[in-house]
Amino acid sequence: MTERSLPSPVAVGTDVVTMAHGAGGKASRALVQSVFVDAFANPALAPLGDGAIVATPAGHLAFSTDSFVVSPLFFPGGCLGDLAVNGTVNDLAACGATPVAISAGFIIEEGFALADLRRLAEAMSAAALAAGVPVVTGDTKVVQRGKGDGCYVNTSGIGLVSGQGAGLSPAAAKPGDRVLVSGPIGDHGTAVMLARGDLGLSADVLSDTAPLAGLVHDLLAAAGDGVHCLRDPTRGGLATVLNEIASASGVGVVVEGDRVPVREPVRGVCELLGLDPLYVACEGRMVAFVAPERSRAALEAMRAHAQGAGSVDIGEVVAGPAGLVLEATGFGGPRVVDMLVGDPLPRIC
Amino acid sequence: MTERSLPSPVAVGTDVVTMAHGAGGKASRALVQSVFVDAFANPALAPLGDGAIVATPAGHLAFSTDSFVVSPLFFPGGCLGDLAVNGTVNDLAACGATPVAISAGFIIEEGFALADLRRLAEAMSAAALAAGVPVVTGDTKVVQRGKGDGCYVNTSGIGLVSGQGAGLSPAAAKPGDRVLVSGPIGDHGTAVMLARGDLGLSADVLSDTAPLAGLVHDLLAAAGDGVHCLRDPTRGGLATVLNEIASASGVGVVVEGDRVPVREPVRGVCELLGLDPLYVACEGRMVAFVAPERSRAALEAMRAHAQGAGSVDIGEVVAGPAGLVLEATGFGGPRVVDMLVGDPLPRIC
Repeated sequence: MTERSLPSPVAVGTDVVTMAHGAGGKASRALVQSVFVDAFANPALAPLGDGAIVATPAGHLAFSTDSFVVSPLFFPGGCLGDLAVNGTVNDLAACGATPVAISAGFIIEEGFALADLRRLAEAMSAAALAAGVPVVTGDTKVVQRGKGDGCYVNTSGIGLVSGQGAGLSPAAAKPGDRVLVSGPIGDHGTAVMLARGDLGLSADVLSDTAPLAGLVHDLLAAAGDGVHCLRDPTRGGLATVLNEIASASGVGVVVEGDRVPVREPVRGVCELLGLDPLYVACEGRMVAFVAPERSRAALEAMRAHAQGAGSVDIGEVVAGPAGLVLEATGFGGPRVVDMLVGDPLPRIC
Repeated sequence: MTERSLPSPVAVGTDVVTMAHGAGGKASRALVQSVFVDAFANPALAPLGDGAIVATPAGHLAFSTDSFVVSPLFFPGGCLGDLAVNGTVNDLAACGATPVAISAGFIIEEGFALADLRRLAEAMSAAALAAGVPVVTGDTKVVQRGKGDGCYVNTSGIGLVSGQGAGLSPAAAKPGDRVLVSGPIGDHGTAVMLARGDLGLSADVLSDTAPLAGLVHDLLAAAGDGVHCLRDPTRGGLATVLNEIASASGVGVVVEGDRVPVREPVRGVCELLGLDPLYVACEGRMVAFVAPERSRAALEAMRAHAQGAGSVDIGEVVAGPAGLVLEATGFGGPRVVDMLVGDPLPRIC
């Protein structure tokens, strides 16, 4: 996507920030383009990857940042703490980088229970250990009651870009590439939604939050420069990632709807609520665009990894129309999988 | 300071987080020690410098993170935006590193004016340009009304540690070292306090927010490994920095009270409010501990830089008592300059 593809005033369409601006869809993209990309214009930021690649005299580094404002703080399968570590580990992995260090910045609301803060710190520590990356620096700020929501955490991360990861880019998908996803989608968003308890629903769904640097390492070792781009489908889900890559690469994507893996309870909850699992966030899944001649090796490497046992080839990249994502369904013609403007699930990460 | 110097339950002394925990004084230190340092135990985190030094196959990197929650967002001399960039640039500079990239993570409250967000982004961009470091990656989250306070920003930064900065450490101050400060203290905290408008006071005080990487570069070029430690006195002010270095290095510090530079309006406002300028935050000052034989060259280099024209030698490091900071006053004996538990000025950065 070129920097100017969304004209500023029209795209933002309001004079205040709304919840839709934080949801990862079209409104988020418009805000980022119209306020931040213009203000901070520089070549490392422009590609809007999961992280930036910074060329230094000491080599190529990946650098990524994410603030986590998930509500509730604790949910089946995880909490703000491990989510924050895994989220940044996965953004670095999506850049083809090996994570080397993570930072942790806390904004805590006055009155937050120290016992909960300890639980969060312990979950972060365990996640960092599992990902093999230390939390090396941090910061703590406290805001008055009513100026926060318990605890927000920013994690930033540094990774080393290896030779094999150096060619990855959101703009590198090519017609013929296979689209691989590393497991069932929508678990995280569904688990968080259910944990809010205001839907009167219960189902056996755990967040999929997990670190994916090991999976990406194995994938790159198996398929090398046949891997063209990687992205983890968080806010806005798989549909948003496919649209972003299709736009950035100037290609189309055709997904075989019945091959997209969705767990039964996730499908059931989404049906009840009128949600499409394609738009529901994952926090432990990777989408890979891989040259067709390497896609078999790639899929085998992903399936051999504990975090990728459920990996599936869900479709392919086509020459055009550029930026269009289509879902081939079992009945009738394909449907357009557009990017949402907002998101029915705010604050899931 | 060793990791276990503050036993956890006693030091925190409450079961919830309080404003004092965010103020940069003893309570902050106790919280960090008892919750985070224990959970994240690793050698890069343990020194609790302004940033961490990360050894990578590609060389030594400095890595720092800070969340900024200043209130109000705009104040005489600056705003949240330039404060956030300068704060992280200065933390990297205090590590002896040349900043190479900055990240920006926004947590925005629903309803925040886009015009204000643009002003913040433009101020960040201008500050980044002035510091010569690009904002390369970012993130935007939106929280509901009443769950934030307009806008919070996290900046993290990567720097390259040069040969001359490699020996700097909060634990490296030595008896005989001169203590140099790069200009008048307390301007930032005073400007923010006045900007809140609830004190019924007005005075001509601007925040000193400024990037100090250039100053530190010149200082290290002039005094080399004679510079033992650097720290920028933000939350908790000069007194807190002196206490932290005295503790970490196991030395004492004696400050000549009448040499500490304080602008007249800052002194006046502090007197009216019963505050001691030694505890009021700066955002554009550096404190340097320099071997006596290099201190003259160091001071000259600092004074020759635009950000250090007001640099002064304010005292010296003594063998002990370890951890004790004394202020020699013109009348009577010296007084102990202790670390505060909390801070009379919350949310000044």
